[in-house]
Amino acid sequence: MLLGRVVGTLVATRKESTLEGLKFLVLKQLDIEGAETGGYRVAADAVGAGLGEVVLYATGSSARQTKFTDKRPCDAVIMAIVDTLEVDGTVKYSKADAD
Amino acid sequence: MLLGRVVGTLVATRKESTLEGLKFLVLKQLDIEGAETGGYRVAADAVGAGLGEVVLYATGSSARQTKFTDKRPCDAVIMAIVDTLEVDGTVKYSKADAD
Amino acid sequence: MLLGRVVGTLVATRKESTLEGLKFLVLKQLDIEGAETGGYRVAADAVGAGLGEVVLYATGSSARQTKFTDKRPCDAVIMAIVDTLEVDGTVKYSKADAD
Amino acid sequence: MLLGRVVGTLVATRKESTLEGLKFLVLKQLDIEGAETGGYRVAADAVGAGLGEVVLYATGSSARQTKFTDKRPCDAVIMAIVDTLEVDGTVKYSKADAD
Amino acid sequence: MLLGRVVGTLVATRKESTLEGLKFLVLKQLDIEGAETGGYRVAADAVGAGLGEVVLYATGSSARQTKFTDKRPCDAVIMAIVDTLEVDGTVKYSKADAD
Repeated sequence: MLLGRVVGTLVATRKESTLEGLKFLVLKQLDIEGAETGGYRVAADAVGAGLGEVVLYATGSSARQTKFTDKRPCDAVIMAIVDTLEVDGTVKYSKADAD
Repeated sequence: MLLGRVVGTLVATRKESTLEGLKFLVLKQLDIEGAETGGYRVAADAVGAGLGEVVLYATGSSARQTKFTDKRPCDAVIMAIVDTLEVDGTVKYSKADAD
Repeated sequence: MLLGRVVGTLVATRKESTLEGLKFLVLKQLDIEGAETGGYRVAADAVGAGLGEVVLYATGSSARQTKFTDKRPCDAVIMAIVDTLEVDGTVKYSKADAD
Repeated sequence: MLLGRVVGTLVATRKESTLEGLKFLVLKQLDIEGAETGGYRVAADAVGAGLGEVVLYATGSSARQTKFTDKRPCDAVIMAIVDTLEVDGTVKYSKADAD
Repeated sequence: MLLGRVVGTLVATRKESTLEGLKFLVLKQLDIEGAETGGYRVAADAVGAGLGEVVLYATGSSARQTKFTDKRPCDAVIMAIVDTLEVDGTVKYSKADAD
């Protein structure tokens, strides 16, 4: 999995019918320090993530292992909202501090 | 998923027989600002996308989760036509404005 | 899918037994203009592609969705021979012209 | 598979329910010399890896082939703790020496 | 598939139990000329490859399509030992010459 920050939304009325009701969020990819890498991903939301939150997302067939994305043409899913990220003994991100 | 703009078509008469009837479109990959990244993808069309439209495409096994692509040797599918893309509180793309 | 040009062959007598009879072709990856990118791929041939031809290839599990590659340890397959590639209103490649 | 060093942990209380109980570790990717590449991955832990250990991780659908990750939206798993890595006749990493 | 040269071995006693008995080899990735690219991969060996040999390896779910790797958390497998690689009419690698 990789880290991302929810920065936006994508609306699409004309889409594969099985995607009806799925929420697409735009993520900026983050590095291990919590800094933006320049990359992005549009991901389905399986956990009710909100704008500004740091999340974990899974890609490929693993993105279909939720009730929202099962058997759907979806290759990226937000499967967790990050509370704390600790690297080399330092807290790089804390949701409590960010909120 | 990633964003792309439909810029062309690909015709192939000699192909895996299960691909008969599938429409292949050429996509220029877009970044989060809607600008071209230099990359491209040839994708099957599951939603009737037209030239110039901004679309969302899925890759890998997820690209086979449509009736058009099921069990076919196809690793990229256009599964949604983007209406609006909003990032950091700004509308980066609006189909209504583009049309 | 991505575009490639068939530039060579690979022979391997010692291999996974299920790969017996499969033809491996060497592809140079092409960009959207039909120019070489510097990348390559060794792909199984499902369509009888010949040296010099421009083809479309699929990767990952989608590469196993042909009778030649089903259930085999093969992650890239040539599934179509390109007749015409048209981008931004211009024909970038035409097999008829190339032949 | 690629090599990584366990450098941190990630805590997420709000997540896909099937991920309950899964431990997420932060890995810095290593090159063949055991040096950091700048990349990272958040991976589920299937082997009880500890901070500082050099591990092997698998990605994609292969990351779901453990009892911990089966049918879960998880695309990276630590599946082995490296004892020795020998390249070109030289031991590049030895857990015994590192401990 | 991509080309690699077997340059080393990896030993891991603590690992997912289903990986018991699987041999992990370290590959340096090769380009189409047979030159090293700087990348590497740790792959399971399904064909009895030896140090110094040029091999073909498959990644992703395709890496699990051998009796050695079936249903195991393994995302790269050596599935063929290259005898000859011919590109643009020139033999770039010949095992007979290399042996």
